[in-house]
Amino acid sequence: MSTLFTARDACSFGAHVVVRELDLPVEVVRVALRTAESPIHAVNPLGRVPALRLDDDTVITENGAILPYLADLKPGTTLFALPGEPERAQIQSWISYISTEIHAAGFRQVNRPERYSADPASHDGIRRQSARTLHAAIAHIDRHLQGRDWLVGNRFTIADAYLGVFVRWIARLGPDFAGFDALNRFREAYLARPSVQAALAAEAG
Amino acid sequence: MSTLFTARDACSFGAHVVVRELDLPVEVVRVALRTAESPIHAVNPLGRVPALRLDDDTVITENGAILPYLADLKPGTTLFALPGEPERAQIQSWISYISTEIHAAGFRQVNRPERYSADPASHDGIRRQSARTLHAAIAHIDRHLQGRDWLVGNRFTIADAYLGVFVRWIARLGPDFAGFDALNRFREAYLARPSVQAALAAEAG
Ligand SMILES: N[C@@H](CCC(=O)N[C@@H](CS)C(=O)NCC(=O)O)C(=O)O
Ligand SMILES: N[C@@H](CCC(=O)N[C@@H](CS)C(=O)NCC(=O)O)C(=O)O
Repeated sequence: MSTLFTARDACSFGAHVVVRELDLPVEVVRVALRTAESPIHAVNPLGRVPALRLDDDTVITENGAILPYLADLKPGTTLFALPGEPERAQIQSWISYISTEIHAAGFRQVNRPERYSADPASHDGIRRQSARTLHAAIAHIDRHLQGRDWLVGNRFTIADAYLGVFVRWIARLGPDFAGFDALNRFREAYLARPSVQAALAAEAG
Repeated sequence: MSTLFTARDACSFGAHVVVRELDLPVEVVRVALRTAESPIHAVNPLGRVPALRLDDDTVITENGAILPYLADLKPGTTLFALPGEPERAQIQSWISYISTEIHAAGFRQVNRPERYSADPASHDGIRRQSARTLHAAIAHIDRHLQGRDWLVGNRFTIADAYLGVFVRWIARLGPDFAGFDALNRFREAYLARPSVQAALAAEAG
């Protein structure tokens, strides 16, 4: 059986939701992050989640790879599209946009300015300007969602499962980030899904 | 016919190489970046390359989506792997690692510190510490390439086509980045490929 390694409230949550949406035979194991004793280091030398360990011990890292791999375990699922279909590329594109522009080049600098300057005096300035950069990247998604329930093809896909992670993080960024109406609607619909409720309950346990 | 929009010396170069490797019926059009008059704005509202416009005018953005879409135009190509195969996930994983950890959360801060702090006095510090963060992310790839010619499966894939972009950028980062022996070997092999030579010549034209 494959094992998906996740951490509470981390970017691995989308993959956890996909396992539940598709009822996949994948064991979900919660690990701690940023502690030397965490079992994640034996799985992923970078110490990061998500990581998916396959039957043969191959380890797959990165949301951009794990989400499509999981969906492809059920070829034809409405959560994804078949190779060659433009919708497949659009779904993969949103996953990529979110992991580059929202996570890696957005939240990362807001949350961990120390990785981007050794001078503590500049960390507040980094947090402030990075929040502006992040705001602009989020606005692009909010515009796309105006008049749409989900990112691609009028149905919940793996891109939405993943977007939900960051929509939950955005809710904590304060008043400047409260006015994204389409994203706020998305959050309600996301949180109402049984798969999301079940994954939240499991991760809280 | 589909059109791939690229810019000189940009992260779109990998997709350009894939078009040539697979001899795809895709027109490659070079555009300028960061100028209001560039035709890229009519294609991608974010003003970014790569962007792939399909026959029916659907536009696909993001390397993480364009590279697999192009390869899937030739199902069974050695540049990729079929859905369900772990190698496909490994190839997609390296593309994702490179676009998140190397590009978005590495080069972006080294090259454009103004997006991460409004205070010019902190830009040097951001460049310095971001270079360290980037160095650590690159070292992970260099370690993986020790004893290997290419990232996945002992053959040139779309992940290598994309890695080549950043290996060329790394060569300009100065002496601290000169000692990655496996990456240096990779660069030689990459630049020796006819597809890479042809793409370089076309982009210089
Ligand atoms: N590019 C990776 C990023 C993964 C990542 O940053 N995961 C975080 C959790 S949200 C983590 O494990 N952080 C622990 C650490 O960096 O030590 C992906 O999209 O999968
Ligand atoms: N996450 C995107 C990033 C694309 C990107 O940043 N492209 C750069 C060229 S390397 C660009 O077009 N920059 C112009 C701009 O930001 O105005 C991807 O991987 O495709």
